[in-house]
Amino acid sequence: MIIIMEKTATAENIQGVINILKEHGFRAILHEGAVHTVIDALGDKTTLSPDRLEAMEGVSQVKLIRQPYRMASRDRKPEDTVIEFENGVKVGGNNRPVFMVGPCSVEDDYEGLLNVAIAAKEMGCQFLRGGAFKPRTSPYDFDGLGEKALQYLAKAKEETGLLVVTELMDATDLDLVCKYADLIQIGARNMQNFRLLKAVGKCNKPIILKRGPAATIQEFLLAAEHIMYNGNERVILCERGVKGFDSSFTRNVLDISAIPVIKKYSHLPIIVDPSHGTGQRYLIEPMAKAGLVAGADGVMVEVHNNPAKALSDGKQSLSIPQFKEVFSKLNSLIDILHLENSNSPVNVE
Amino acid sequence: MIIIMEKTATAENIQGVINILKEHGFRAILHEGAVHTVIDALGDKTTLSPDRLEAMEGVSQVKLIRQPYRMASRDRKPEDTVIEFENGVKVGGNNRPVFMVGPCSVEDDYEGLLNVAIAAKEMGCQFLRGGAFKPRTSPYDFDGLGEKALQYLAKAKEETGLLVVTELMDATDLDLVCKYADLIQIGARNMQNFRLLKAVGKCNKPIILKRGPAATIQEFLLAAEHIMYNGNERVILCERGVKGFDSSFTRNVLDISAIPVIKKYSHLPIIVDPSHGTGQRYLIEPMAKAGLVAGADGVMVEVHNNPAKALSDGKQSLSIPQFKEVFSKLNSLIDILHLENSNSPVNVE
Amino acid sequence: MIIIMEKTATAENIQGVINILKEHGFRAILHEGAVHTVIDALGDKTTLSPDRLEAMEGVSQVKLIRQPYRMASRDRKPEDTVIEFENGVKVGGNNRPVFMVGPCSVEDDYEGLLNVAIAAKEMGCQFLRGGAFKPRTSPYDFDGLGEKALQYLAKAKEETGLLVVTELMDATDLDLVCKYADLIQIGARNMQNFRLLKAVGKCNKPIILKRGPAATIQEFLLAAEHIMYNGNERVILCERGVKGFDSSFTRNVLDISAIPVIKKYSHLPIIVDPSHGTGQRYLIEPMAKAGLVAGADGVMVEVHNNPAKALSDGKQSLSIPQFKEVFSKLNSLIDILHLENSNSPVNVE
Amino acid sequence: MIIIMEKTATAENIQGVINILKEHGFRAILHEGAVHTVIDALGDKTTLSPDRLEAMEGVSQVKLIRQPYRMASRDRKPEDTVIEFENGVKVGGNNRPVFMVGPCSVEDDYEGLLNVAIAAKEMGCQFLRGGAFKPRTSPYDFDGLGEKALQYLAKAKEETGLLVVTELMDATDLDLVCKYADLIQIGARNMQNFRLLKAVGKCNKPIILKRGPAATIQEFLLAAEHIMYNGNERVILCERGVKGFDSSFTRNVLDISAIPVIKKYSHLPIIVDPSHGTGQRYLIEPMAKAGLVAGADGVMVEVHNNPAKALSDGKQSLSIPQFKEVFSKLNSLIDILHLENSNSPVNVE
Repeated sequence: MIIIMEKTATAENIQGVINILKEHGFRAILHEGAVHTVIDALGDKTTLSPDRLEAMEGVSQVKLIRQPYRMASRDRKPEDTVIEFENGVKVGGNNRPVFMVGPCSVEDDYEGLLNVAIAAKEMGCQFLRGGAFKPRTSPYDFDGLGEKALQYLAKAKEETGLLVVTELMDATDLDLVCKYADLIQIGARNMQNFRLLKAVGKCNKPIILKRGPAATIQEFLLAAEHIMYNGNERVILCERGVKGFDSSFTRNVLDISAIPVIKKYSHLPIIVDPSHGTGQRYLIEPMAKAGLVAGADGVMVEVHNNPAKALSDGKQSLSIPQFKEVFSKLNSLIDILHLENSNSPVNVE
Repeated sequence: MIIIMEKTATAENIQGVINILKEHGFRAILHEGAVHTVIDALGDKTTLSPDRLEAMEGVSQVKLIRQPYRMASRDRKPEDTVIEFENGVKVGGNNRPVFMVGPCSVEDDYEGLLNVAIAAKEMGCQFLRGGAFKPRTSPYDFDGLGEKALQYLAKAKEETGLLVVTELMDATDLDLVCKYADLIQIGARNMQNFRLLKAVGKCNKPIILKRGPAATIQEFLLAAEHIMYNGNERVILCERGVKGFDSSFTRNVLDISAIPVIKKYSHLPIIVDPSHGTGQRYLIEPMAKAGLVAGADGVMVEVHNNPAKALSDGKQSLSIPQFKEVFSKLNSLIDILHLENSNSPVNVE
Repeated sequence: MIIIMEKTATAENIQGVINILKEHGFRAILHEGAVHTVIDALGDKTTLSPDRLEAMEGVSQVKLIRQPYRMASRDRKPEDTVIEFENGVKVGGNNRPVFMVGPCSVEDDYEGLLNVAIAAKEMGCQFLRGGAFKPRTSPYDFDGLGEKALQYLAKAKEETGLLVVTELMDATDLDLVCKYADLIQIGARNMQNFRLLKAVGKCNKPIILKRGPAATIQEFLLAAEHIMYNGNERVILCERGVKGFDSSFTRNVLDISAIPVIKKYSHLPIIVDPSHGTGQRYLIEPMAKAGLVAGADGVMVEVHNNPAKALSDGKQSLSIPQFKEVFSKLNSLIDILHLENSNSPVNVE
Repeated sequence: MIIIMEKTATAENIQGVINILKEHGFRAILHEGAVHTVIDALGDKTTLSPDRLEAMEGVSQVKLIRQPYRMASRDRKPEDTVIEFENGVKVGGNNRPVFMVGPCSVEDDYEGLLNVAIAAKEMGCQFLRGGAFKPRTSPYDFDGLGEKALQYLAKAKEETGLLVVTELMDATDLDLVCKYADLIQIGARNMQNFRLLKAVGKCNKPIILKRGPAATIQEFLLAAEHIMYNGNERVILCERGVKGFDSSFTRNVLDISAIPVIKKYSHLPIIVDPSHGTGQRYLIEPMAKAGLVAGADGVMVEVHNNPAKALSDGKQSLSIPQFKEVFSKLNSLIDILHLENSNSPVNVE
């Protein structure tokens, strides 16, 4: 840490900082500049929070040199994390990008779900996604079928062999969701629901963690750190758009650059969700492609048997024929670019 | 609702929309413009989600005329909601703005907490705030003392008569927190933790709901609506800053205008939190004043017995002498301006 | 336009709106809802500004159905605009994406500039970019060589045949810049310098207009409209990133989705600038690729003979060897994907 | 400056940085940490841009200790700047906050303007504002009467004694505007039109500089620095709202906290503009009050003789009776709070 003192800091203020640093085992090196005094603190930040230093009299700013996340950091683990599923599907590293598709929420129409699953299988997808428990901005909106939805997903898995990914909203449903899901999703609005992160940190299923709409990249990686710190290192990140100042054309701003940034600073796999990221059907194809060439390890897209009758997110869902058209293009892109070999960290420094 | 069709919409597309509207009991009025066809839909939106219409072929946009929240809306209840506590303290309406003060988190130093509580009582505060369960961005930070903190708060209440406000992070702690708290806080990062909102919607304590860092005013009021819809209409809102593009000087942008906006569109009380809103001690006084003259029903501020030793948020906490100085100014402002009579909805239309 | 009246609007208020609409040749259709009265106004918006209606008593909101830009709109001109240069280079439509490269600012080192130009030519670039007049946030920073820089660019053009693109900061330099430039750049910070837009609207060189850091897509297209309205329809747009809430890793958020959105709503060509968009050298390759697959008609990148000695933007500039490596990959991507045939508007509605 | 090297930086990289620092007269102090090497550079930043260091190989980040603005900084000039006008009106320091009111644009109705001016005089305002040259997002909107408007303003000044403030959009109009205006406004969209800043830096009239909608506080102060650096130290700042993610209720987010922040870091006066800051008439009163109690040296508000007929910004303009009602409340607030003595920099550190 580097502690920058106020111009008006007294000798006593400076000594106060030095004392607390020494107390916590830091080495303190003092530089008296023309205007400000600066203290270099060498030691282990976990023993002394920068917040605490910032609160001391005479301290102007505390600047960190190292990122506060560790287990999620590429510094600690240079090689890509690859997450392997029971059926051999692998996410991350040099593996072919994966596809996770399905309806926003599973509705009371098993045939519709199965149609999507069959089409997904046909297009080479690995995961069937679908919400059983849905977070909804308004209490008047449909919030999911619950366990029945999980049963439908399991049935579709049985028929197609697709892995199941579904959202967990509350730790009390953890056992239930674990029973049916191969990959547990933490939604964007729960990215900093730390109790939920702790709970899934203690379970033995891989987690897909969506970036919160106002989360910085550091906050996103620290949320992953919460899961890893509690024992579960199998975390897949998902970029799904952040709040921007212009919502006339897109629901969010899909932050494609977050993908190569995170690839540089973390070893965790990251996939892209152009459905939530844009909220517009016509943007799914170009933005999925953009994510893939920028290094994404997979794509998550909403597909519905009949988007015009979807109980949620129909506007951003592909119909089955549209899905087939878009995903055959995505498959071609992956084949032509040999993306399975190229999503390693970018080299130009 | 007003449904604007694409320029390229076919007669069949238009008929499709009209059919679904009729199915759901809407009256549909068609306007064929030079470029676009527009359909006015008169009826009850709860029976048909605009999302569903937006997903139909040929539909360009669906515009809502009424706000989607109801119980929180001033349209439905024109008079201010006033929330009364067991000791007669009232929040909202024409009542004198209330003060909620205390440390960010309750630490293992009861004397320190009691010192703050005694000073708070002396300055005319009504509530003692303090975290027992703390959401922390990093898993390496102090996350609260748990029940012991609640016991400390209860003891300080006994000695000073202050009401206790503390954060609930997970529904499983609800009974425990209800046992000790007079007012239950839902933190900013849990503003859209819908399970938690549902849980507190079923309890019999008043709730203080903090605005999420990227929540629009509509999302904020819909979060309150979740609580109210589940049965608990005693909700106090709290503006505590939103994410901005400049975090060099302040942690967040404290959105003062949200106070008079919410006063116009909702009957719920709203208070201001300049500690989290700015993250800077020197901004507490001016921003608390700004919130009060803009119509806030109260102020929440972090005060610590020894900010330089605080385990969290020291930088934005006032020491006891600073607190006394700032709050005697706030009390004067309230007295001089007779704010107890003026925080009614603004009249100039 | 659709005019939504306040719940409390009087019959007189409503009549006032109808009168003004009729005065301006609009047809007004009245719908009295359960809560609000809504007026459909059919007519020519240029004769009556929505602002004026919004200011009337009893009016709650005015919603527009058509976009306010016209000349820039694809509604008015469905086919892509292609801009052709004297040497036959074409930008837009189904043409191969173009490359514009060069140093942020032209420095007093002609050899350095020439080295970049020669490398650019070798890699198939069409344009040499370089600033003669530089907008600088701080008055203490290098702000360009002025005419000398323009002469250097012209000399490099003579030697390599590359077209010259350079920024115009003030209308008084227009003749000077026109003398040397093939394509005139309006920088992001001048996107709403309407006098400058008007001036270049009257000149006979094509314009490249960069998106302002806080400009909505509508504001961006309206800035283009200013140029077109003044007589110059040869406008190339450039997405270069918008302000976001997280500037720890990237200077801006490069809004890749703006590319397909603008392709849908406008016929103008649009290119992507990953140097300014991210401010990070290692992000140029993935973000240029992302822009290209999302439909960009070209890429603008900063290349410097010796980035470590650049007087501006060195951090985000490629050295010549890095440039060759990155651009041979971009060329491959374009070749493999046959992007010259695929950047037409996306079809999935 | 503090230069933080990449974890992978070589001894050669480090030596490269040290060499360039020494070349520019800096003293370099090296700290080899467990992970990163850090170099403290003590010297004069104007001789070596941090950008240049950031572009060097092996450099991870360059952190500045001092703010990059100087003439605008309170470090350099601790006492408040007070700007005095020909008629003795003073802005800044302990002087009573000033009022600047008038229509958004001066229209071809001198009587209307005079009515506003007379009312303004009556309410104790010091400045009459009105646009002669208007920046308009769309080329189809009214963009000002030009010199005729300036003549109307001068005539109204003659009759009422009010000082005239009007916007300059282009340096070519500088002499014309100087002839009529007492205070020259640089609009938000021109905040980084550096040529314009340079031009007004060379004129002898005071300048009011509005904050750009996406400008950080540092960029804002650096824009003021451009004017001051060119010779004109008489700069008044104006907070008028920044772009936010929620524009349903307010046009911008009026950043009240920017007022006390700027008071702390700069000696320049700052006023608040709640009309543009919110875009809503009913928010003018609470937000003007909020600005005043937070330390603003004045308030700028749009007032129109007949807002419903205003050619621009009617929605956010007060009518004359509304203006009188609101400003008598603002006058009372100033009187009661003795704000003329209290807008000094806030003391709690």
